Amino acid sequence: MSGNTFGKLFAVTSFGESHGAALGCIIDGCPPGLELSEADMQRDLDRRKPGTSRHTTQRREADEVKILSGVFEGKTTGTPIGLLIENTDQRSKDYSKIAGQFRPAHADYTYMHKYGVRDYRGGGRSSARETAMRVAAGAVARKYLEQRLGIRIRGYLSQLGPIRAEKLDWDQVHQNPFFCPDPDKVAEMEAYMDALRKEGDSIGARINVVAEGVPPGLGEPIFDRLDADLAHALMSINAVKGVEIGAGFDCIAQKGTEHRDEMTPEGFLSNNAGGVLGGISSGQPIVASIALKPTSSLRLPGRSIDVHGNPVEVITTGRHDPCVGIRATPIAEAMMAIVLMDHYLRHRGQNGDVSVATPVIGQL
Amino acid sequence: MSGNTFGKLFAVTSFGESHGAALGCIIDGCPPGLELSEADMQRDLDRRKPGTSRHTTQRREADEVKILSGVFEGKTTGTPIGLLIENTDQRSKDYSKIAGQFRPAHADYTYMHKYGVRDYRGGGRSSARETAMRVAAGAVARKYLEQRLGIRIRGYLSQLGPIRAEKLDWDQVHQNPFFCPDPDKVAEMEAYMDALRKEGDSIGARINVVAEGVPPGLGEPIFDRLDADLAHALMSINAVKGVEIGAGFDCIAQKGTEHRDEMTPEGFLSNNAGGVLGGISSGQPIVASIALKPTSSLRLPGRSIDVHGNPVEVITTGRHDPCVGIRATPIAEAMMAIVLMDHYLRHRGQNGDVSVATPVIGQL
Amino acid sequence: MSGNTFGKLFAVTSFGESHGAALGCIIDGCPPGLELSEADMQRDLDRRKPGTSRHTTQRREADEVKILSGVFEGKTTGTPIGLLIENTDQRSKDYSKIAGQFRPAHADYTYMHKYGVRDYRGGGRSSARETAMRVAAGAVARKYLEQRLGIRIRGYLSQLGPIRAEKLDWDQVHQNPFFCPDPDKVAEMEAYMDALRKEGDSIGARINVVAEGVPPGLGEPIFDRLDADLAHALMSINAVKGVEIGAGFDCIAQKGTEHRDEMTPEGFLSNNAGGVLGGISSGQPIVASIALKPTSSLRLPGRSIDVHGNPVEVITTGRHDPCVGIRATPIAEAMMAIVLMDHYLRHRGQNGDVSVATPVIGQL
Amino acid sequence: MSGNTFGKLFAVTSFGESHGAALGCIIDGCPPGLELSEADMQRDLDRRKPGTSRHTTQRREADEVKILSGVFEGKTTGTPIGLLIENTDQRSKDYSKIAGQFRPAHADYTYMHKYGVRDYRGGGRSSARETAMRVAAGAVARKYLEQRLGIRIRGYLSQLGPIRAEKLDWDQVHQNPFFCPDPDKVAEMEAYMDALRKEGDSIGARINVVAEGVPPGLGEPIFDRLDADLAHALMSINAVKGVEIGAGFDCIAQKGTEHRDEMTPEGFLSNNAGGVLGGISSGQPIVASIALKPTSSLRLPGRSIDVHGNPVEVITTGRHDPCVGIRATPIAEAMMAIVLMDHYLRHRGQNGDVSVATPVIGQL
Repeated sequence: MSGNTFGKLFAVTSFGESHGAALGCIIDGCPPGLELSEADMQRDLDRRKPGTSRHTTQRREADEVKILSGVFEGKTTGTPIGLLIENTDQRSKDYSKIAGQFRPAHADYTYMHKYGVRDYRGGGRSSARETAMRVAAGAVARKYLEQRLGIRIRGYLSQLGPIRAEKLDWDQVHQNPFFCPDPDKVAEMEAYMDALRKEGDSIGARINVVAEGVPPGLGEPIFDRLDADLAHALMSINAVKGVEIGAGFDCIAQKGTEHRDEMTPEGFLSNNAGGVLGGISSGQPIVASIALKPTSSLRLPGRSIDVHGNPVEVITTGRHDPCVGIRATPIAEAMMAIVLMDHYLRHRGQNGDVSVATPVIGQL
Repeated sequence: MSGNTFGKLFAVTSFGESHGAALGCIIDGCPPGLELSEADMQRDLDRRKPGTSRHTTQRREADEVKILSGVFEGKTTGTPIGLLIENTDQRSKDYSKIAGQFRPAHADYTYMHKYGVRDYRGGGRSSARETAMRVAAGAVARKYLEQRLGIRIRGYLSQLGPIRAEKLDWDQVHQNPFFCPDPDKVAEMEAYMDALRKEGDSIGARINVVAEGVPPGLGEPIFDRLDADLAHALMSINAVKGVEIGAGFDCIAQKGTEHRDEMTPEGFLSNNAGGVLGGISSGQPIVASIALKPTSSLRLPGRSIDVHGNPVEVITTGRHDPCVGIRATPIAEAMMAIVLMDHYLRHRGQNGDVSVATPVIGQL
Repeated sequence: MSGNTFGKLFAVTSFGESHGAALGCIIDGCPPGLELSEADMQRDLDRRKPGTSRHTTQRREADEVKILSGVFEGKTTGTPIGLLIENTDQRSKDYSKIAGQFRPAHADYTYMHKYGVRDYRGGGRSSARETAMRVAAGAVARKYLEQRLGIRIRGYLSQLGPIRAEKLDWDQVHQNPFFCPDPDKVAEMEAYMDALRKEGDSIGARINVVAEGVPPGLGEPIFDRLDADLAHALMSINAVKGVEIGAGFDCIAQKGTEHRDEMTPEGFLSNNAGGVLGGISSGQPIVASIALKPTSSLRLPGRSIDVHGNPVEVITTGRHDPCVGIRATPIAEAMMAIVLMDHYLRHRGQNGDVSVATPVIGQL
Repeated sequence: MSGNTFGKLFAVTSFGESHGAALGCIIDGCPPGLELSEADMQRDLDRRKPGTSRHTTQRREADEVKILSGVFEGKTTGTPIGLLIENTDQRSKDYSKIAGQFRPAHADYTYMHKYGVRDYRGGGRSSARETAMRVAAGAVARKYLEQRLGIRIRGYLSQLGPIRAEKLDWDQVHQNPFFCPDPDKVAEMEAYMDALRKEGDSIGARINVVAEGVPPGLGEPIFDRLDADLAHALMSINAVKGVEIGAGFDCIAQKGTEHRDEMTPEGFLSNNAGGVLGGISSGQPIVASIALKPTSSLRLPGRSIDVHGNPVEVITTGRHDPCVGIRATPIAEAMMAIVLMDHYLRHRGQNGDVSVATPVIGQL
């Protein structure tokens, strides 16, 4: 109930702080027989890893994951998969000066109220470093979904501060340090980030994630709608302040005749629903979009209070991402993979395997 | 795991279909000693009830709730509270003609794929009629939160299609059929809805919900962040396609210096966070906003397929809300109440009662 | 977390007190497509019902169950099944005199400490009346298991106070008011019970439950072993003080060469394991045995205290079972059915349907 | 749902196999502010550790536990506690010869049916080696319960095969290799075990566990009764085949006047209930007793089948405990500690801290 587990049948429980000895997680419920090695996870971990371009934090973490259990002779056994990443670049001295202060817009103040105590080294458990384990666990889900059901999950940065991607060219996403699918915007983004870094400020971003090949029928009707669980999963990522499915907030001004995705024997004619109807996947691509706030770890001074309630001026001098959204794409993909995996197993538990009794019509 | 339960310590499990014998729910985990009667729930049920103005469905449901257990001599006993609402106006004949068709943008197609069977009477379990039990259960949470912690939860319609409320006058919210807090927009909304109804079309809406007086410290750090659980709860409401906390999608274009809510001994200087930092309440008002899609139950014909995959033209002739968002305000309030109640009990379980060890600074 | 739900994928949540308006439960997660009517449950409810012989309480309850949801056109839809039994014979006046006293060996004292309040009418929620809903829910599980997997679950009374059944003739179980499988002991039991009733005392009993046809592979290895979940389920029945699986306590004095159930291609040569190895079903019959204590609701006076801590002499004059074990057979069967159903769905979720890849050897 | 988590609010999730790289667990929900170091766990781990006398397996495992997270400056922070024990003495070659065989009365056969694959190295996940993590996690619960509530949890071996302890002298329990509380039986037990080891056979045992100082009010009334959760916890320990609470199976032949524990202002006059009434602690000592089967890993040949269904003769030559019950005392204590801790937090969540509103009468 302390919220360190995500998923019901494919359940990921994680531990670890920014500057502790190690991060780890346990994946419980993974089906047996899946070929799995560290390399399957490392690919996604490397995409999230800090320090791969000048636009992300220069903290260097190898982020090398080890499988400690649950895999025998190269395949999952159905028993829990223990994963571990040791922290190698901790430099906790950077943080000592803020031990008695609450950094504005950080979890410092709220953790202190919740627990009466706080690990001030780099945010401790509240650091986004924790998301490394999400990416590792998500890679397992992703591999299963792809091999077993042909599902493909991909994300991209659709907006960086004021700059919007206007083209969606999937081949471009990994050709630049921003996960930007529009090659025409990359130079603009680079210039923007360079200026921002000089300025000492930070900026928000928008990430989109799409899952293709999801069979119809996944999701539970009422409280655990597929879109509700996705919203939960995505909003649980550090810095996320908004989640949309399909048309999202645009549907406020849509009329019903415009919004409803009509169907023909050849398929749906639009995808305002974002692939989810009544909380259950329709066979269309699942489409989600999230807003990430700018980090508040800035060297520009901000007003705050100390643990005694006195006013202080806070400057954060650690190594931070000027746009945390940039590295968020693999995290968002991982969370979507975990949600879909979990719902696939939940569906199979109650209803048997995904069915083809009813005609499945084409994707958009 | 079939998703009919919401909450961990304050757990609401519901049942019932649009045209079945009754709706009901069980609230498990309510603290003992709370004075409770049907009247406490009826007030909110009546705010959600259909047929209270010409702008909502003319289906007439008394929505009278009965307490079947868990209350003795006027107080909760700590044992499960069983609630029941009998369905009185069912008219399932209205729906017989669509038994073999999939209504566009409805759950018909996805339920059939999930279960291989479908209750076609008014959508069955997928109908928003189910939300009556959310409102009833939410009223219990709301009463406890108000009495025990002084928390006040209120919502309003902030946008109806193209028309935005520009003032927030709480006293106005219940003075019009739209839950609109801006009296200057009510006439415009009425005219818009009258035209829409004539046209036979429907429209989306935006609802905001605010909880004031929430003590700092509620929420769990990682996957069950307070905002993540709120996103889950709100996205699980029928027709919701987007959820924002605090600045929401606006934070994409905010800089860190602008977004971070600075603190002084007198309080926070802004509330871009929407009252949640690191997934934990900060003591500021919790602010959420949701987008509701336009209903797809229209008398204007739409293209679709039947259960055999043949093209059909669908017309929905039942009694439907032209703007489902209008009646959604009490539902959104109820879900926020359940989330806060659940997190209060979760917090108390692990950490003891909410503490005042650290200085709580003022709300914005 | 307040413990009114049993099962993870086939989840039964119940409510209701002995002398409240009604009892009810919600079954969440039942697979769709199962033919189901009230009659399927009524058969088992009637077997548990009070007042069917002079050896059980003379309280008369019709125990008529109504299905309120989850069934459409005679089949389950996959959505939650709401069940209701109205209380008809409540006579709460019987209990008013004990409102200020704690009956010895009852839940009165502990409920008061837990909740600070107590429903003194017939024990309220602590009454075994609650088990009616277990029987109703168990009947659904039982039907599914029988139709889908050919599993048969049966129980019997193997000991009544000092009298042990020495034969196991399944055909005899329903030929006497005790569920006794040994016809030679029935007269002795009748005489014993008649004397006991005259005396005003009560007695304990032992019930055995057996599930045949359970496929190998059900159960989870570590904490949710099939036998651990069975122990949980059976110990949760009112008055149960002990649970054994297979050889049970006899295994203390067994040597390994005696206890281990050897296997041949034709099958296992014994069943000391009770059908469970490493927490997982082996294909042999699942065999459990439980001890039920004598009821403490006696007209013979007992020493106790009142709510102020003063000594009192308590006499219980309501209508009570002199041997609560007699009516427990259908309840124990129901709990075993729910456990097996839940584990079947859990298995199917993670591993797909029960497999036949490995040779299944014969049952004992 | 794959059963590797125990507890709801104090939740322990474990991973690891007998011959894998490491064992580990995550404790989620531990209250903040508890002083905690590895030494707190090592004491109990050393009591369970193999190889401490000639009567247990000669496998040598250091069983050194490391805290990887959740503790900062010597105190728990409220965030998840990651624990790790590296396997040091694996010798998996011992097991290669049984890779194609099913050892009788082992989990080999059932794991193969469940997962379609099996880790044959020392039983893999089904090995009792997993219980090391239970002991480590239990030590955390135990420390909290003792410091915060004054609860003391102790166990002992009450029967070894045919030899019963007849005295309960707590001071003797750690004076012999059997956890035997009766010094007069130790020599007999030693002789028995020496003969058994020579013979190559194994034997069962009975362990009792007692918790003193448990406040009244812990436990949930219906399915999660304190005794039901204890039965679950204790039956989930490898080799356990029976669980009793209080009078246990003796209550079958007890009359109500004998069984009911009468109360006076000075306290209860007996403890047949084992400290639990209606599923809730009464303030008396919680008393449980369990039966452990003899291990089936014997060098005496047994009949079995191989993975193709052919008859084979199995001899197990690894290093095994001739009486697994001997080392089970700390494990049973640990599981009781986890159950009590979990129920304490659950109680506090719903009802606030344990109350003293009603007079608490003395323990027996």
